[in-house]
Amino acid sequence: MSGEGEAVKRVRQMTGEDGKDKESEAKSSDRMPLLGGLDQRWRNWWIRGILSIVMISLFAVVIYLGPIALSLLVVGLLLKCFQEIIAIGYSKYREHNLPLYRVLNWFIAIVASIFIYCDNFFYYYPELKGTTGLFSFFGQYHRIICLSLYVAGFVLFVLTLQKDLYNTQFSMFTWTHITLFLFGCPAYLSIQNTFESIFWLIVPVSLVVCNDIMAYLFGFFLGRTPLIKLSPKKTWEGFIGAVFATMLFGLVLSHMLAKYDYFVCFKGGTDCERPAIFVLQEYNVGTFFFYLYPAVLHSLALSVFASLLAPFGGFFASGFKRAFKVKDFADVIPGHGGIVDRFDCQLLMAVFANVYYFTFCRSPDPDKLVAILLSLPLDQQREIFTHLQQALANTS
Amino acid sequence: MSGEGEAVKRVRQMTGEDGKDKESEAKSSDRMPLLGGLDQRWRNWWIRGILSIVMISLFAVVIYLGPIALSLLVVGLLLKCFQEIIAIGYSKYREHNLPLYRVLNWFIAIVASIFIYCDNFFYYYPELKGTTGLFSFFGQYHRIICLSLYVAGFVLFVLTLQKDLYNTQFSMFTWTHITLFLFGCPAYLSIQNTFESIFWLIVPVSLVVCNDIMAYLFGFFLGRTPLIKLSPKKTWEGFIGAVFATMLFGLVLSHMLAKYDYFVCFKGGTDCERPAIFVLQEYNVGTFFFYLYPAVLHSLALSVFASLLAPFGGFFASGFKRAFKVKDFADVIPGHGGIVDRFDCQLLMAVFANVYYFTFCRSPDPDKLVAILLSLPLDQQREIFTHLQQALANTS
Repeated sequence: MSGEGEAVKRVRQMTGEDGKDKESEAKSSDRMPLLGGLDQRWRNWWIRGILSIVMISLFAVVIYLGPIALSLLVVGLLLKCFQEIIAIGYSKYREHNLPLYRVLNWFIAIVASIFIYCDNFFYYYPELKGTTGLFSFFGQYHRIICLSLYVAGFVLFVLTLQKDLYNTQFSMFTWTHITLFLFGCPAYLSIQNTFESIFWLIVPVSLVVCNDIMAYLFGFFLGRTPLIKLSPKKTWEGFIGAVFATMLFGLVLSHMLAKYDYFVCFKGGTDCERPAIFVLQEYNVGTFFFYLYPAVLHSLALSVFASLLAPFGGFFASGFKRAFKVKDFADVIPGHGGIVDRFDCQLLMAVFANVYYFTFCRSPDPDKLVAILLSLPLDQQREIFTHLQQALANTS
Repeated sequence: MSGEGEAVKRVRQMTGEDGKDKESEAKSSDRMPLLGGLDQRWRNWWIRGILSIVMISLFAVVIYLGPIALSLLVVGLLLKCFQEIIAIGYSKYREHNLPLYRVLNWFIAIVASIFIYCDNFFYYYPELKGTTGLFSFFGQYHRIICLSLYVAGFVLFVLTLQKDLYNTQFSMFTWTHITLFLFGCPAYLSIQNTFESIFWLIVPVSLVVCNDIMAYLFGFFLGRTPLIKLSPKKTWEGFIGAVFATMLFGLVLSHMLAKYDYFVCFKGGTDCERPAIFVLQEYNVGTFFFYLYPAVLHSLALSVFASLLAPFGGFFASGFKRAFKVKDFADVIPGHGGIVDRFDCQLLMAVFANVYYFTFCRSPDPDKLVAILLSLPLDQQREIFTHLQQALANTS
C-alpha cells in the first residue's frame, strides 16, 4: 500500500517542497510583497493566522448584533456555499451548454434560503404574523409561496430538458438538490440553535474552529505520523493534540458564556428565567465539591464529537474534491480556500448540536407556550384555560 | 423538430405496434395464458385495470385499519422505493465492485425510515414518551439514536473510500442522499397529513391516481395529439380530459369523505370537534344558496394542482429513466412497472397537500395544546395557568 517513498513525498507536500506547491507559493508571494522575505512555510502560517483572527473578530461583531444578525449571517454563508458549488458545477458542465444552468440553480438556491430563514424566523417571532402588511402576509404564506416558486423552477427544468442532454441535465438536478440537502439542513438547524440561545450557535462553531486550528498547530509543530491517506496533511499528533485542546477550550468557553444572560436566554434576551443547564449546581467528587453549570459538562460531549467526528467531514471533503478534481472550492480567503472548505466539518457538527440540544438540554419553555396560547382567538384561550383548570384541580 | 414520420412512429409505440413492444407483450402473454386470446392492446388494458382495482381495494382495507396502519404503509412504500432505487444503482455500479455498496445504502435507508416514522409518531402521540420501557426510551432519544447511526454509516463510507474509486463512490453517496431527499421528504409530510386527518392523505393520493387513470383512459380512447416529446404516450386529449374528470372526482370524493368523522378528525378519531373546513356552510350565488363543506372547495385547488403539475412529475421520471437507461424502475406490478413508477406524481402532490393544508386549512387545535400542556411538570402547568388567568382577566 503506502511505502516509505510515498510517506516522504507526502511530508514534502506538507512542507510545500514539491514543484507544484512552490509554484503556487511563488504566485501568492507576488500578491503579498510584505511577507515575501519569509520562508514560505512561515509565510503561509502568518497569512492563515492573521486571516483567522480577522474572521474571528468579524464573527464577534455579528454576535454582538444579536440572534437576527447571526441567523442572517448563516443564510449569507449558505448562499456563498451555493455560489461556490454552482461555480464548480458550471465549470464542469459548461462545455455541454446546458440551458438555464445558472439561472435555475440560483433561483432554487435563493428560494431555499428564503424558506430556511422565514420558516425559523416566523416560528420564533409568531407575533409578527398577527401584524398587518408584508410581515403578516409573508409570515402566513411563506411556505406556499416558496413551494410555488420551487415548483415553477421544477417545471422550467422539465421544459428545458433536451434529449441529447438528459444525462447531464439530471446530473445537474442531482447536484443542485444534494447541495440543498447537505448545506440546507445544517443551515436550518443552525438558525434554530441561534434563536434557542446564542450559546448553541457559538459553542459548536467555535469547537470545530478550535479543533481545526489546534490540529493545524499540533500537526505543524509535532506532526510526524500521517493519519489517513485521503488527507496527507493530517497527522496523528495533530489529531490527538486537538482532541485534548478542544475539550479544554470547550470547558473554558462554555463556562465563560454561561455567565451572561445574553448568551443563554431564548432569542438573545437579557432578562429571562435561566434554563436549568445554565444554573450553577453543586457536584461532589469524593470529599471534594464544586459548583458548575451543567452546560459545561454538555460542552464536553460536543467537544468529543467535534474532535472525533468532524475530521471525517474533512476527509469527506478531501475525497469529494479529488473526485471532482478541484483543489479548493474557491479562492476567497488566501490560505483558507473557499467558504465551503472552512465548512466541511461544521455541517455534521451543526446537526449534532441541534439534536443533542433538543434531546438533552432543552427545558420546555413555559414563556413560549404562553406566547402561543395568547396568539389564539379568545374563546379558544378560555377553552384551554378551563381544561387546564380542571386538570389541575384533579391533581391537587 | 418532430416531423410527421416521428409522430406516426410515436403513435405506433403508443398502440404497441413496434417490434420491441410486441416482444415484451409476447413475454407477458406467456405469463398470463388466460388473456392470451385477446388483442394485445386490450390485454394490457385488462391487466392494468384489474390490478388497479386490486390495489385500490387493498388501500381501502388499510384505510379501515386507521392512521397508524396508513402511516406504516407509507413507510413500507418508502422502503420499497429505496429498494428499487438501490437496485438500479447496484446494476449501474456493480462492475466497479464498490465496497459495502448495498450494506451502506440499506443501512441509511432503514435509519432514515425509522427517523421519519418515529419523529411523526412521537409528535402525535407525545403521551407515550411519559410511559416507561422501550416506547419512552425511544420516544425521548430516537433523534439522537438515528443521527448516531447515520454518522456511523457516514464514517464507514469515509473509511471505505478507495483512491481509484473516488468518483464512483461519491456518485453513490449522492445517489443515496438524493433518494433520501426526494422520497423521504414527501413520505415525512404524508405521514404528517395522515395523523392530522385521514382526509388529507386519501384525497391527494386519490386525485393523482384518478388523474393518472383518466389521462390513460381519455388518451386511450380519444388520444391523437402528442403532448410532449419526453413521454410519447401522453396526449393533449388525455391531459385535458383528465383535468375535468379529476376536478369532478375531487368534488365528489371530498364531499363523501367530509361526512364521516373518521376521515376528518385528528388522528382518525370518531368523536371530535370538527375543524372549521368540515362544517357545512351556506354559500350564495346570486339568488341561489346551497350548503357545502369548505373542504370541498379546497379539494378543487388540490385537483387543479394534481392535474396541471403532477404530470410534470411523470415527465421528470420519464427523462430520469431515459438518462439512466432503465425502462421501468422495477417489474413488481404487471403493466404498471415498479412502485417508483406509480409514485413519480405522488411526490410533488404530497408536499403540496401538506403545505396547502398547514397554510389554509389547519385550525389551531385546542385539544392538542392541552395535551402538550398536561405533559409538562406540574409546577410549569401551574405557572402557565397563572399567566393565562392574568391575560384573560386583562381582556375581559
